[in-house]
Amino acid sequence: MTTPAKQPYKGVFPVAPTVFDADGRLDLAGQKRAIDFMIDAGSQGLCILANFSEQFVLTDEERDTVMTAVLDHVAGRVPVIVTTTHFSTFVCAERSRRAQQHGAAMVMVMPPYHGATFRVPEAAIYEFYRGVSDAISIPIMVQDAPVAGTPLSVPFLARMAKEIGNLSYFKIEVPQAAAKLRALIEAGGEAIEGPWDGEEAITLLADLDAGATGAMTGGGYPDGIRQIIDAYFAGDRATALDAYQRWLPLINYENRQCGLAACKVLMKEGGVIAHETLRSPQLAMHPATRAGLIEIARRLDPVVLRWGR
Amino acid sequence: MTTPAKQPYKGVFPVAPTVFDADGRLDLAGQKRAIDFMIDAGSQGLCILANFSEQFVLTDEERDTVMTAVLDHVAGRVPVIVTTTHFSTFVCAERSRRAQQHGAAMVMVMPPYHGATFRVPEAAIYEFYRGVSDAISIPIMVQDAPVAGTPLSVPFLARMAKEIGNLSYFKIEVPQAAAKLRALIEAGGEAIEGPWDGEEAITLLADLDAGATGAMTGGGYPDGIRQIIDAYFAGDRATALDAYQRWLPLINYENRQCGLAACKVLMKEGGVIAHETLRSPQLAMHPATRAGLIEIARRLDPVVLRWGR
Amino acid sequence: MTTPAKQPYKGVFPVAPTVFDADGRLDLAGQKRAIDFMIDAGSQGLCILANFSEQFVLTDEERDTVMTAVLDHVAGRVPVIVTTTHFSTFVCAERSRRAQQHGAAMVMVMPPYHGATFRVPEAAIYEFYRGVSDAISIPIMVQDAPVAGTPLSVPFLARMAKEIGNLSYFKIEVPQAAAKLRALIEAGGEAIEGPWDGEEAITLLADLDAGATGAMTGGGYPDGIRQIIDAYFAGDRATALDAYQRWLPLINYENRQCGLAACKVLMKEGGVIAHETLRSPQLAMHPATRAGLIEIARRLDPVVLRWGR
Amino acid sequence: MTTPAKQPYKGVFPVAPTVFDADGRLDLAGQKRAIDFMIDAGSQGLCILANFSEQFVLTDEERDTVMTAVLDHVAGRVPVIVTTTHFSTFVCAERSRRAQQHGAAMVMVMPPYHGATFRVPEAAIYEFYRGVSDAISIPIMVQDAPVAGTPLSVPFLARMAKEIGNLSYFKIEVPQAAAKLRALIEAGGEAIEGPWDGEEAITLLADLDAGATGAMTGGGYPDGIRQIIDAYFAGDRATALDAYQRWLPLINYENRQCGLAACKVLMKEGGVIAHETLRSPQLAMHPATRAGLIEIARRLDPVVLRWGR
Repeated sequence: MTTPAKQPYKGVFPVAPTVFDADGRLDLAGQKRAIDFMIDAGSQGLCILANFSEQFVLTDEERDTVMTAVLDHVAGRVPVIVTTTHFSTFVCAERSRRAQQHGAAMVMVMPPYHGATFRVPEAAIYEFYRGVSDAISIPIMVQDAPVAGTPLSVPFLARMAKEIGNLSYFKIEVPQAAAKLRALIEAGGEAIEGPWDGEEAITLLADLDAGATGAMTGGGYPDGIRQIIDAYFAGDRATALDAYQRWLPLINYENRQCGLAACKVLMKEGGVIAHETLRSPQLAMHPATRAGLIEIARRLDPVVLRWGR
Repeated sequence: MTTPAKQPYKGVFPVAPTVFDADGRLDLAGQKRAIDFMIDAGSQGLCILANFSEQFVLTDEERDTVMTAVLDHVAGRVPVIVTTTHFSTFVCAERSRRAQQHGAAMVMVMPPYHGATFRVPEAAIYEFYRGVSDAISIPIMVQDAPVAGTPLSVPFLARMAKEIGNLSYFKIEVPQAAAKLRALIEAGGEAIEGPWDGEEAITLLADLDAGATGAMTGGGYPDGIRQIIDAYFAGDRATALDAYQRWLPLINYENRQCGLAACKVLMKEGGVIAHETLRSPQLAMHPATRAGLIEIARRLDPVVLRWGR
Repeated sequence: MTTPAKQPYKGVFPVAPTVFDADGRLDLAGQKRAIDFMIDAGSQGLCILANFSEQFVLTDEERDTVMTAVLDHVAGRVPVIVTTTHFSTFVCAERSRRAQQHGAAMVMVMPPYHGATFRVPEAAIYEFYRGVSDAISIPIMVQDAPVAGTPLSVPFLARMAKEIGNLSYFKIEVPQAAAKLRALIEAGGEAIEGPWDGEEAITLLADLDAGATGAMTGGGYPDGIRQIIDAYFAGDRATALDAYQRWLPLINYENRQCGLAACKVLMKEGGVIAHETLRSPQLAMHPATRAGLIEIARRLDPVVLRWGR
Repeated sequence: MTTPAKQPYKGVFPVAPTVFDADGRLDLAGQKRAIDFMIDAGSQGLCILANFSEQFVLTDEERDTVMTAVLDHVAGRVPVIVTTTHFSTFVCAERSRRAQQHGAAMVMVMPPYHGATFRVPEAAIYEFYRGVSDAISIPIMVQDAPVAGTPLSVPFLARMAKEIGNLSYFKIEVPQAAAKLRALIEAGGEAIEGPWDGEEAITLLADLDAGATGAMTGGGYPDGIRQIIDAYFAGDRATALDAYQRWLPLINYENRQCGLAACKVLMKEGGVIAHETLRSPQLAMHPATRAGLIEIARRLDPVVLRWGR
């Protein structure tokens, strides 16, 4: 059993998929197996209800069901980050408070956005995060991702880190993430408790070199990411580089060909979950793409393909 | 009292704001007064839970509360369109079914989108609308708006109109709406039951000339829009043009300076509602912008500024 | 004959179209007639080679031909602003220097951009404008327009105004322009020599109220814009409001239905130019849209429809 | 010496950088050395004046200078693709004709775009490509890239391939390129003479599996790409996979951390060119990013780091 990380949280915190049955209904039994696999495979923490969890196809009630089921099931084995993003300060604060009450270790929050066009100016983003922070006493991770369509400058992020109590982790998934992480650490100093890598670890080594202390990846192969990150943190960068090179074809295939479906396909293939259903109108992975994924994964013998067999 | 329009629905169907108290909580008493004003001011129908209703700051539960409160309160006086957009086919279908059960005359649905980047291809959009249509027996209005970040071509819209049972109304709010309405009517023929104007009526006259039969505007001055549209449908285009010219400065000011806040400010100013609160992190209208809005509105003596006094 | 404005430049500076013959070749005779009409109709200055001049369909050589032909033909009758935007600091500086040598009163420059994705960070934008400023001794107008896909914050614009010698005019064409003009004037004080309105005057009155001192509009009806702006600057806001209301249907129709084609259609209809050709692959205006434009314009009896008859 | 490929062109056709001296002026001597290196390193063809050649910082005259210098210097050793993209059909056709006259083997053309907002509808894109095709007798490669901000559907591309004479090559650089290549080959059949991979080869193996016959990569390490592609085309997929895995860290680092600067940095480091200048306002690569690039490259011992030493 993995020992929970102490604060500041470090290491591999993959995103857990939201598991559906063949008809697209929540499959809580499958959900728990996915969580167990992810912990067994070396996750030092987990993130739930992220975009890679298809949070955007859930009702509020389903979101709550998944959150409580996962937090109860994890039962402190590893720290769990709950994504609580919502446009409304009030709703996001309420979701965050509830996540904390149920045992979340941290909340992850994107700046307010809706669709392609509704955004708010910097001063309003600041008040939004302050409002969420005031409602809780666990850390906030700012998710700096293209999906939000909101550029967050380094000076602005550093200022929020210094001035807003719980805002201390940063998942950077924008282009040239390493350069942004480096600049953020320089600008924010000690207020940047957790400068993290995102986007399926596609830039992991550059991000580690830039100072990243955590990685929020897809949920399919925490064991692979651990090989990179453990060696790196142990000071053995050459071994980390070798591991990164070994896993990069799979990371890259997930990042460029598959997106959020990769994790479910791998878990289905390895018997972790019974269905790899994406909730409609999302399309199932093309058979050729799926075959390519399995082929590349097999070469690496990841835990996921053996865990349920 | 306004007599409900018969199908196909025609005329002015403004968007009702979602009314909050000073703290940003739902103000259902104010909500009902807003609805009563809108009907008194000549709305031939209403739309609720649209983007101009700030639907994106609500929880699912609040959305349901607003829907049932408004449908119960309207009690058939005018047809009500309920916006039920959600990324998930299943959730959108469920919301639409529930709207129908509570007496909605129509649902309005944007194609699936989330943030700046999550979109689905045309074939998936088609299946999404078919799934929603199969769940209900009232019409669907496709909302073709920039916020969805999903270009919907005229051939595709016409094909869906012909092939998907309940899909028959179209609110076009993209640039050069009149040209798109004209092409859509040409391509879709009788399947286009309701080619509608959107975006605060800023292009209303061109849209009417192109064949629009309805207008979904902001909720502040249905009486003004009626002056344009009634004359137009009565065959008196010259009077319609004069009315359009008279109301255009206000329409334009709402469209370019105010957005969704205009309606609430006017209603507050006229004593219809007690608070013009936008739910945070949205910012209150700048005092100078607010003063400009009131000044331009006063010149037109709209019902909204007298109704509650 | 119009007397040239003194610095700081104020008033109506419409964009001149680039005139093509039936085959899409430069029509310099037509170009000169367009310029003469625009001056006769009350333009207090002109802008050439802007986006509304279809600058993006020209070769460098054609751009130079148009610039020298117009500057020679205007011969000081009114000040001429030359758009010299280019991604490269070096090329933009060179174009600007050449414009100054040929008698341009000002250059208008967007921040560097290419297509949907190539942009540079704020520090590089700053150096870009400084590089252009260092090459010339006439004012630079920053064009703050959605086409550049580069948000320019008020603090950043104000800082450039204070620190970069020739950077002193600002054409604001982004949403909620009035609020931005107001904030810019507040933040930049005397360094903001020319806070200007853009986008076909669709927000002109709000922009004037916010402190705008100039308007860069389409080229079709400077006489109309003068009616608004002359009354306003004479302190007669009521007359300005009436004039704005009178011209707004045409302004709005140009802005929402026509874009850059409006000016050419009006000039062709009034005999100013022989061809309203847009260079391919731009499409000619739809006949129904064209008819609508002429109808709305006729009601106002603008000079353009009489000048060449 | 490399033997020029026969039509249909296949293999590795990297993009040549445009070489500048320390002051940002064209360095034609350096340009020729870059070309010689690229041919020596195994390029089966070249592409010039692409976005990765910084084409957007050049004047028309400089573009012509680079084109003629490179075509003369290559002198038929390998086929050269010249990028001739321009918004105007006329200008793009003229550029393409001139490229053909000087010996270009093919032209590469994006659909018309300008900045973030100027685009044309599908029918106009079709006419644009037809106009360019009619002006020449060499193949056109459609560049399907995010920078154009113009989604090109598979049915539309296939139709153009079938109906427009010279339009027969396709460089696909949009997300999920492999799926698009597969669908395009299915839809277009024999009309798709050259389905090509783009974007620095980051998706090369998936694209080859999908049927890609060429790769347009960055210019820094054609020898590496050859190792992948030669094995693949020789039917030895296992060796190709090994080579891909070996080179992927470098490919990925170029794609995610460096962009167009990678090639110049490598060439400078290896003594191929004297200056790695990007023309202002583009910023030089951050020293830490640069060090990371060199480190990753050194592990692979690419020709570029030895060629000029």
